[in-house]
Amino acid sequence: MNNFVYRCPTRIIFGKDVIKDTGTFVKNAGGTDILMVYGGGSIKKNGIYNTVVESLKESDVKFTELSGVKPNPRLDLVLEGIKLVREKKINLILAVGGGSTIDTCKAIAFGSAVPEGEDIWDDYFMVLGKPIPKGIPVGVVLTIPAAGSEMSNSCVITNHNTLNKRGISNENNYPVFSVIDPQVCYSLPAYQTACGCSDMLSHMMERYFTNTSGVDLTDELLEGAMRVVLNYAPKAVSNPDVYEYREQLMFASTLAHNNLFGCGRQQDWASHWLEHELSAQYDIAHGAGLAIMTPAWMRYVWKENPQRFVQFFTRVLGSTLPVTDVENLVKDGIERLENWYRLIGLPVRLSEANIDGSNFELFAERCLSGGRTAAGGLKKLYRDDILAIYRLAL
Amino acid sequence: MNNFVYRCPTRIIFGKDVIKDTGTFVKNAGGTDILMVYGGGSIKKNGIYNTVVESLKESDVKFTELSGVKPNPRLDLVLEGIKLVREKKINLILAVGGGSTIDTCKAIAFGSAVPEGEDIWDDYFMVLGKPIPKGIPVGVVLTIPAAGSEMSNSCVITNHNTLNKRGISNENNYPVFSVIDPQVCYSLPAYQTACGCSDMLSHMMERYFTNTSGVDLTDELLEGAMRVVLNYAPKAVSNPDVYEYREQLMFASTLAHNNLFGCGRQQDWASHWLEHELSAQYDIAHGAGLAIMTPAWMRYVWKENPQRFVQFFTRVLGSTLPVTDVENLVKDGIERLENWYRLIGLPVRLSEANIDGSNFELFAERCLSGGRTAAGGLKKLYRDDILAIYRLAL
Repeated sequence: MNNFVYRCPTRIIFGKDVIKDTGTFVKNAGGTDILMVYGGGSIKKNGIYNTVVESLKESDVKFTELSGVKPNPRLDLVLEGIKLVREKKINLILAVGGGSTIDTCKAIAFGSAVPEGEDIWDDYFMVLGKPIPKGIPVGVVLTIPAAGSEMSNSCVITNHNTLNKRGISNENNYPVFSVIDPQVCYSLPAYQTACGCSDMLSHMMERYFTNTSGVDLTDELLEGAMRVVLNYAPKAVSNPDVYEYREQLMFASTLAHNNLFGCGRQQDWASHWLEHELSAQYDIAHGAGLAIMTPAWMRYVWKENPQRFVQFFTRVLGSTLPVTDVENLVKDGIERLENWYRLIGLPVRLSEANIDGSNFELFAERCLSGGRTAAGGLKKLYRDDILAIYRLAL
Repeated sequence: MNNFVYRCPTRIIFGKDVIKDTGTFVKNAGGTDILMVYGGGSIKKNGIYNTVVESLKESDVKFTELSGVKPNPRLDLVLEGIKLVREKKINLILAVGGGSTIDTCKAIAFGSAVPEGEDIWDDYFMVLGKPIPKGIPVGVVLTIPAAGSEMSNSCVITNHNTLNKRGISNENNYPVFSVIDPQVCYSLPAYQTACGCSDMLSHMMERYFTNTSGVDLTDELLEGAMRVVLNYAPKAVSNPDVYEYREQLMFASTLAHNNLFGCGRQQDWASHWLEHELSAQYDIAHGAGLAIMTPAWMRYVWKENPQRFVQFFTRVLGSTLPVTDVENLVKDGIERLENWYRLIGLPVRLSEANIDGSNFELFAERCLSGGRTAAGGLKKLYRDDILAIYRLAL
């Protein structure tokens, strides 16, 4: 295991009907004048909007609204939020949504604290590893499980002018609280449920595929949590309103990305980097893009650490092929994974998502822009490797 | 799963040689005049004392020392610490030790903030569930893995006048940081290593044995972590200075008790309660007491939820007996667990620890004093049940 520092201070409030008490959690976190951020109309249709607003009023919390967050959240809206925070003297930002909404709020929070003369995009998102200033607190009412942003230090924003999608991981990004009621998932379309499950599984795989030795404990935790996602995702896709399915997936998605499972391990993240270029350009859902890029990535890199893939496919995907025939076991394992993606209704090839190879050169270039020299941890991927993987995904 | 709230803000700094930077962590947490608390001479012999003191001096941190913490930490020393904190205007307490030292520091921290007219023992430890005041921060340099107190909200103290041992779990008990270097374990006697492993395993079993349904995810996490402890404990006992063994156990012990694994689950804790009475009276090591009480508890309660025990013995202890013959599987499983305790050198009967039945009535009475009506979660245990379990442990 590598040396590590771990801290995750977000308070999780999890269970049936906890959203009704949102106002209390906001108040306890010091929120009196808040910015409430959300996406489009879905929270108005499914009643979450009303529940939250009622609870805020009961607790005498004043709120300003900022709506219109879309998947692959945009820098434009972040800048609009920063303006509102300054104008209205906001002291807490409440995200009511999924990963895109939460990431928008995280960016607004630290963006409001960026010193004069610095630019949130050029001086932070495009600079690898730069610490961010501590902004006002962010609270979350989670409406879509997937991203894990509700308990993570990461924040991914897309600049639609430059078509760059970039993430920042920093301790100041943790929400102060996250209110998580699995019942909010009942109304999610099957495709969105599936994309969420693909994303949470990927957050675990990105941590699992490592060359670090002495990682038995986090291996066990990751393997167990991945088995739960693999087991419950198809159930939730076919039976959307069973609480028992939703709670397992919602808790798994939160744990997948708070980095406990990644402690002391070299992590990979190549599939995420390669996917980010897809969804920045095509507005394909992130989880669908991962279902395409991950198997392609596996085909290209498995020889770098065959034993890790053997362990993954036998312990997590239930392969029973002889471990002596590694090549066959890996081939079969990747097919098992692809079959699972298909089972929950996701594409596993770019062609199935109507994406052709015309932008691969551009993707590879963007993927390695902003001071990045290579993608991935298990195998370092340079321009030609990245192009090869995109081609395998066709 | 039950509704739950989870928050664990302790910063973990884990790995080789991290103790050398203790002064920096103390300073970052606001410590300038600190109380450094430790046990007897072991940290002076193994060099940890010197490393910490040098690091504190390098960071210009002034420190007052309080030593003499013993296993089953005493209220007397807590009171002495509270006096020192007030006299010397201490702003951080640094525990250099294991569970006993950390718990002493937690009690000193909140005890220093108890309002005038209230008594730390009578008004807090002996009152079930009473919130505690927020005291000055506690930092930790961990020297013995086991208790998990370095990342937990719990604090167990013994009053040697009344011979009561009592625990308080409260959010204000979390250390602000814990410095964890597995190398400190190299010098631990085998018996102490074994007791630590027994304690960490118990922290997981107390959470595992539940009647709550819909707990697949935390089941998987617990089972994986328990397998790691069962696998590495005998190795570390026979080969004390292998880093790879120590790091797995040390990380497992920290995770065992930060309550992530207990989220949304009814927990048990009867074995701990029953053991506390033993070690309050006899000064037997807590981990040894658990090795005795846990199998006895299992023999008495398993019929309350046979399926849970079948799952435990098959998935965690590797039983391959037919699950149709539950009685036999459980019997065999308990023997497997006992054999593991024996393998690492622990007693599994009171008689092996030279404890007879003469105090059982007193234990049962004390176990249910202070407003407690019953022990345990999986099966509620009243006076006669408790007596029966003590007898099974003879």
